[in-house]
Amino acid sequence: MLPNGIISLTTDFGADDPYVGIMKAVIVGCFPNVRIIDLTHQVPAYQPDIAGLFLGLSCRWFPFGTVHLAVVDPAVGTDRDIILLVADAHWFLAPDNGLADEIGRHVTILARRRVDTSRPATTRVSSTFHGRDIFAPLAASLAADEIRPEDVGPVVPELAPSSLQKPRRCGTRVEGEILLADHFGNLLTNIPGALLGHREAAAVQCGGHSFRVVRTYGNTTGQEPVALINSFDLLELACPRGDAARILGLTPGEPVTVQVSG
Amino acid sequence: MLPNGIISLTTDFGADDPYVGIMKAVIVGCFPNVRIIDLTHQVPAYQPDIAGLFLGLSCRWFPFGTVHLAVVDPAVGTDRDIILLVADAHWFLAPDNGLADEIGRHVTILARRRVDTSRPATTRVSSTFHGRDIFAPLAASLAADEIRPEDVGPVVPELAPSSLQKPRRCGTRVEGEILLADHFGNLLTNIPGALLGHREAAAVQCGGHSFRVVRTYGNTTGQEPVALINSFDLLELACPRGDAARILGLTPGEPVTVQVSG
Amino acid sequence: MLPNGIISLTTDFGADDPYVGIMKAVIVGCFPNVRIIDLTHQVPAYQPDIAGLFLGLSCRWFPFGTVHLAVVDPAVGTDRDIILLVADAHWFLAPDNGLADEIGRHVTILARRRVDTSRPATTRVSSTFHGRDIFAPLAASLAADEIRPEDVGPVVPELAPSSLQKPRRCGTRVEGEILLADHFGNLLTNIPGALLGHREAAAVQCGGHSFRVVRTYGNTTGQEPVALINSFDLLELACPRGDAARILGLTPGEPVTVQVSG
Repeated sequence: MLPNGIISLTTDFGADDPYVGIMKAVIVGCFPNVRIIDLTHQVPAYQPDIAGLFLGLSCRWFPFGTVHLAVVDPAVGTDRDIILLVADAHWFLAPDNGLADEIGRHVTILARRRVDTSRPATTRVSSTFHGRDIFAPLAASLAADEIRPEDVGPVVPELAPSSLQKPRRCGTRVEGEILLADHFGNLLTNIPGALLGHREAAAVQCGGHSFRVVRTYGNTTGQEPVALINSFDLLELACPRGDAARILGLTPGEPVTVQVSG
Repeated sequence: MLPNGIISLTTDFGADDPYVGIMKAVIVGCFPNVRIIDLTHQVPAYQPDIAGLFLGLSCRWFPFGTVHLAVVDPAVGTDRDIILLVADAHWFLAPDNGLADEIGRHVTILARRRVDTSRPATTRVSSTFHGRDIFAPLAASLAADEIRPEDVGPVVPELAPSSLQKPRRCGTRVEGEILLADHFGNLLTNIPGALLGHREAAAVQCGGHSFRVVRTYGNTTGQEPVALINSFDLLELACPRGDAARILGLTPGEPVTVQVSG
Repeated sequence: MLPNGIISLTTDFGADDPYVGIMKAVIVGCFPNVRIIDLTHQVPAYQPDIAGLFLGLSCRWFPFGTVHLAVVDPAVGTDRDIILLVADAHWFLAPDNGLADEIGRHVTILARRRVDTSRPATTRVSSTFHGRDIFAPLAASLAADEIRPEDVGPVVPELAPSSLQKPRRCGTRVEGEILLADHFGNLLTNIPGALLGHREAAAVQCGGHSFRVVRTYGNTTGQEPVALINSFDLLELACPRGDAARILGLTPGEPVTVQVSG
């Protein structure tokens, strides 16, 4: 696989500070013809698993050969590793703190490598901003085809695990949980849509509320609680034209059950 | 008119989630040489009229031949139409929910077409994210000159109307309303600056407050309420260096009157 | 020095409104091959000094020949000047309201020029949005090498001063203050890391709290208050994995003292 010159960025840096702009400046300085696409910089602070979830769910819409750079990194400057994943014709750079592992749950991993950061860097490496000093120049070198994945460091057997729960199937019952509320207050769960079987026949419950299974947000009256298979093919709970998280008082971690009739 | 390779994006998707990044990934995958310019992704949720207002007011600063993609689309997945407007050397893709009509109030429409979504799509179309599955690939095809506007679908006679009020002129009195508060708390009204006549002679009232008419924010002392003709040539209410929406307790929909002396 | 075709943007315009997108549209219309990098558009409203601080601290990571456009401009439309700084192989366009001066504290200035805005503009200049009408086209002309810095206007001897305090050294004691809280709640001070001498021997105090000096965020247990030299080489106060501004109740302007042992 050859890189396509695209780098995607996923961080918890927010928009208030110059951090994202500085990372982009470093990338462009290393690889002037790069195309940078922001996935999001609003990952909840210090939640690497959510960054991995976002990137794992989203990467399939990027062209083959994209380098995905993800930094949610509360242990920056300690001896946590930086990982390069080669998977599904995409490359991922991420800290080994659950972020890399969570990505790997959504793609087919071909190789896992630990980035060797001991080699002489072109610039001084700070102890608080590896996004700027390590991730950005390495992503640029990979996207520019100046370094090959097999040259960044040795293969590693396993990764620090993501703490996001997987759904459990018990007969005709699926037990999952809410992973996050999006910008609209729609509640993303960890339950794959495929587990619902015939949608209309499924009974969805969460936090004492029942959810009518519908095909899309528009098929509703008022702000009744509904469940649907969303654009990531995951079960989502919503109050159309309303903020379900607020209206229903539901937050990440809340159990969700789906009862599929026989 | 030929496309210039630029696509502008206007949505209510916010910055927290990967939705905007995914749309850009799809666009770049279809048209690698595209230039994407974000207008804003913070349109108030479910307010298509405001998206249309923003785009209608802003498009004149874009080069001729720009494709403008706008998605505020609470009825996604139902049978609402998607519209292509050709207007003023710009192309606009928007749902037919008031958004397209509101754009049309600010430009000279040459053609209105309904996008034929029945043709075989290259990818599966979800029922909740047409921005990714329909708008993005179509905008890319238009910007890349792979499809011409006249080939996207049939002409339609009229559009679902915008619900934004137009100002009324009653003799020497103009009655309008506040449309929105911007990031600074400045209050945008629907009253064209041209209706004020000689500015100094106009008396502006809103919510029990009187506003002195000034030329710019700097021509003031303290945080007195002022009215000025803003950079969109619309009447704006402000408290210089202060948040007028908060200080004066004014919100969208509040009536504004301008009394022009004879 | 030749321009490299990159323009960075720093404003207090926020993300809610079309203002940033319109500025980019104007820039691209003037210079189609430009590369635009957003530093941040979330500078606190009406605080030009903070914009100058961000840009002065960040510009060294941009390639030589970048044009930096900064607009935090509450006195737009009055007779405040617009300044072009040539410094450290970078060009800066900024209003003369403390913003330009604050940039100059972090770089080596080669020339200060006042932009001559009396020459015939290609478009009508509004009295409220010089970012769109003056800064954007001029930055594009500079980045495209269509105008040289020495042609934008006359040299000026001095600038309106930044109001940000500089730290004071009194023997073995350094007195500074908190400049701002970042997205994570980490507190940036105006004290250069170099003033700490041997880090472990320094005692850092702020608002009645003592801060243990560490090398990076990860070297801690719990959310104890720590001080470290951050990626800008400035002293920073933090509660690792917590929001120090909120936990400790500290805000910009709070005095910080560092006692360096002999």
